Order: sequence, then C-alpha cells, then structure tokens
Amino acid sequence: MNSLPIGLFDSGVGGLTVLKALRQTLPCEDVLYLGDTARLPYGTKSPDTIIRYAVQAAGKLVERGVKMLVIACNTASSVAIEPLQRAFPDIPVVGVVKPGATASCRASETGRIVVLATESTIRGNAYQRAIHDLRPEAQVTGLPCPLFVPLAEEGWTGGELVEGIIARYLDPLFASPLDAAAANRPDTVVLGCTHFPLLASAIRNVVGNGVHIVDSAETTAMEVKTMLTEQGLLQPEQQCGSTRFLTTDDVSRFARTGSAFLGLAIDVETVELVDL
Amino acid sequence: MNSLPIGLFDSGVGGLTVLKALRQTLPCEDVLYLGDTARLPYGTKSPDTIIRYAVQAAGKLVERGVKMLVIACNTASSVAIEPLQRAFPDIPVVGVVKPGATASCRASETGRIVVLATESTIRGNAYQRAIHDLRPEAQVTGLPCPLFVPLAEEGWTGGELVEGIIARYLDPLFASPLDAAAANRPDTVVLGCTHFPLLASAIRNVVGNGVHIVDSAETTAMEVKTMLTEQGLLQPEQQCGSTRFLTTDDVSRFARTGSAFLGLAIDVETVELVDL
Repeated sequence: MNSLPIGLFDSGVGGLTVLKALRQTLPCEDVLYLGDTARLPYGTKSPDTIIRYAVQAAGKLVERGVKMLVIACNTASSVAIEPLQRAFPDIPVVGVVKPGATASCRASETGRIVVLATESTIRGNAYQRAIHDLRPEAQVTGLPCPLFVPLAEEGWTGGELVEGIIARYLDPLFASPLDAAAANRPDTVVLGCTHFPLLASAIRNVVGNGVHIVDSAETTAMEVKTMLTEQGLLQPEQQCGSTRFLTTDDVSRFARTGSAFLGLAIDVETVELVDL
Repeated sequence: MNSLPIGLFDSGVGGLTVLKALRQTLPCEDVLYLGDTARLPYGTKSPDTIIRYAVQAAGKLVERGVKMLVIACNTASSVAIEPLQRAFPDIPVVGVVKPGATASCRASETGRIVVLATESTIRGNAYQRAIHDLRPEAQVTGLPCPLFVPLAEEGWTGGELVEGIIARYLDPLFASPLDAAAANRPDTVVLGCTHFPLLASAIRNVVGNGVHIVDSAETTAMEVKTMLTEQGLLQPEQQCGSTRFLTTDDVSRFARTGSAFLGLAIDVETVELVDL
C-alpha cells in the first residue's frame, strides 16, 4: 500500500483523457497531473529535446512525491520511456504506446490494425513497432489525421461535419466494396493520440459496429491498475481520490481548455503554476 | 537599381504564399526564401524567443546578400519587425501585418472588418491594433480559425466539407437574418495567416460576392513593389527572376509540402539545408 499520488504528465491538456480514464478505473487514488503547456507541442521537437523536457517534467512530479509515473503523451512515450526508467529507477514508469499496442493485438482477429495519430507519432513509428513486436504478422497501417487535434481542441466532437472529416481520412480503408472489404478491411482502430478519445463516438459512427476501437487512454489506465496491484502500491481505501494540477503556462487557460478533455470542470484553485 | 535578391523568411512553408504573390507582382526579381522548419511553429513561443529566431533567420539572409527583408510570417511580423529594423538598419524590412491592415481599411466601406487568423495571432492583437491605428472607428472582430492551417496543409482547399468548416466559423458573423445583416454584417475579411490564401475561393463561396477579401500575401507583395520602386532598388530588367530556398530541416519534405503553397513544384536542387 502506498498513499502517494500517481503522477501523470503531458505537453498540454490532451493527457487529461488518460487522467479521466484513470479516475474511472481507480477512483480512490490521488493523482497529480503536470501539463507542460509553455513548451507544447512536443511532436515537432527533436528526440533529445523531448527526452530533456520529459525528464524535467517527471522530475518535478517526483520532487512533489509520486509512486508511479504515467507518460500521458504519445510523443514522449515514443522516445522517452527508457530514459525516464533510467532517470527514476525506483519508480514504475508507464507510457501510452505499449498498452494501446497490446490491447489492439488482443482485440484484432484478422491482424489488420489501423493506428490513427498525429503526423509526428506516425512518422516516429512507435505504435507500428510495438504492435509488430507482439504480433509480427500484423498488417499495421499508420494513418496521420492532422485535423483531429484541432477538432478536439475546438470541441467539435460530433455531427455531420465532424463525421465527414473523419470519413475523409478513413473511407479509403473502410469504404471499399464488399468483396475487397472482406480481404482488406481492418478490424481494429487504435486511437494513438490522447486527443482522439473525444472523437471516439464520431469515429464509431463512421466505421460501424463491426470494428474494435482501442482507446489508449483506457488501456493505459488498466495497465496502471495492474502494475499498482502487482506491486502492492494501491491506495489504502478512501472515499474518493483527489486530483491536482501543475502547469507551466497560464493557469486559467489550462483550466478552461482542459475541462473538455477531463470531462469535468477544472477548478483553478487546484491548478498551480510551476517552472521547469 | 540593385541586382541582389529579395529575402523572405517564415517559420515554415506558409510564407510561400507571399513568395507566390511576389513572383506575380515582380516577376523579374530574384528571391531567396528561408523556412525555419526545424523550429516551427513560432506562434506558441514567447516574444523573446520569436525575436531571437527572427533575427537569426534574417541574419542568414543578410549574410547571403539581400536588398530587402520580407517577414512572410504573421507571428514574427507582429512582434519582431522593430527589432529587425534595429538589427539591420541598412535594409528595408516589410512585414505582412501592416499591408494587410492598410488594405482592409481601404477596402471597407462600413468599417466592419473581420480578421481570420490563428489563435496566437488573434491573441497577439497586432492586426486589430494596426487597423485601429489607421481607422480608429473601425469595428474589428478577431476570429481565430484553428482548423484552417491543417486544412491548408492537408491540401483540403475546396468542396462541401471544407466550406462547411469555414461556414461553421463565419456563419455567426455572416448568416444573420437580413435585417440584422444590414446593421452588423462585416463587409471585409482579412486573411491574417499566410496559410489562408489557399482557402480564399472556398471562403468566397461562403461569404458571397458582396464581401471584400483582403489577402495579406498579395498586399504585402504590392508594398514590396512600392518600396523597391520608391527606393530605386528594382532589379535591372532580366528575363525572369530566380527563386532559391533555404530550410533548417529536411530538404525533400520542404520541397514536397511547400509546392502547394507556392502553386508550383519546388525542385529539391533549389533547396539548401542551413543551420541557424
């Protein structure tokens, strides 16, 4: 048992979808979330810079006292998980890529898996590699969807227009004629960006019910639960865990933009400005 | 007369719409364009950092020899024009904000002007300020359109879906009932982002023919022509000016993504990798 909070970090507010899933999976845990909004996006930066930023962000959480580190950011998960494990050898570190890859390999019957993500995540190839490590015969298609992040940030998460945009990306893979469909249609879609769970139901409307949608936020929360349980680090039971936030830029902007991702209003009193 | 090239810089490929307009306005001039793609976007960075990057980018152009500096980037134009004028006192410096503001003030009959731009440009308030300096009674609305940059970068520049997205932003201002329209409808739209000229005809379809659309790339090119003429710096006449490119990141990616903005294929042989 360990009463310290779980620490999560992301370059911004996208990782709050992981926090939301964590709150649902482990409602008794305390959580401390750091959004490095002053330096977002990480996706356009070099691996060395991303590793340096990730170690600084994780270091701030460790300084405050956390029992586990969750990298709630695809870019940082892709390049910084091993440097973080070396930098903080006493604390378990979980990223979002491996749980998403594992869940998609379990869900897929045909091995035809599509990863939806930002251009930099797809170019970085981490999901594709993680899936192939588990299932070498899988046919993995990495599909960059650059409009999805601004859609989620605008709060445009459903309706005809949004589904039209999603269909424009997915139709080449899913709207093939029935014969071709049987042979080539993917059966599993991985939401490989922390912003994308906001679009999950619109994506469901586009691909239909026969396709598995793997939300890497949910699967990461399950992985955190498994690791805390195995290592005996669960919170001694309490009414309801607390959630606190650190941000490196404007506090009220963080609270305002973050609320949609968390699915709950964020009280500015729970957000603290920090310098990294 | 001066046979040196005109130097332009931007954080990426968006400024190529300014270069395109310049090529049409001044076909005999040689042009050297620098895209600081390794460090894009500038919009999320602090003013101090943007000024430092702009001075470095301009310094590289000056080192190569240019007779004029064009800041083909809204973010850098907003904060760095005066520092650049101080850093390079012997070279005329033109940004995109003031020409766009001037043209919109000239075009508008009613003084009701809408600036379409990225969120950081609207927050920075430079267009609104520049318009009010010229026309203090103007009613200026800054409208952030975060989906327009990824739309332009995806090459999604027309059709029902694209017009639907544009309408979702503009309808609250333009689709009011006819009575209200007479009183409040803006008569001028400023494209306050170098990416947006790619969407100009789709925007025209949404707002209709009664509205002036001011393209700050075109108006900047006109301003460059005026300044070169006034200062006697025009190219001694030649067949057709040359265009060369510098970029701080992947050369072939620059050529590939830039072509849509320039409206012409970019030969990788004309692109050189530089370090700032």
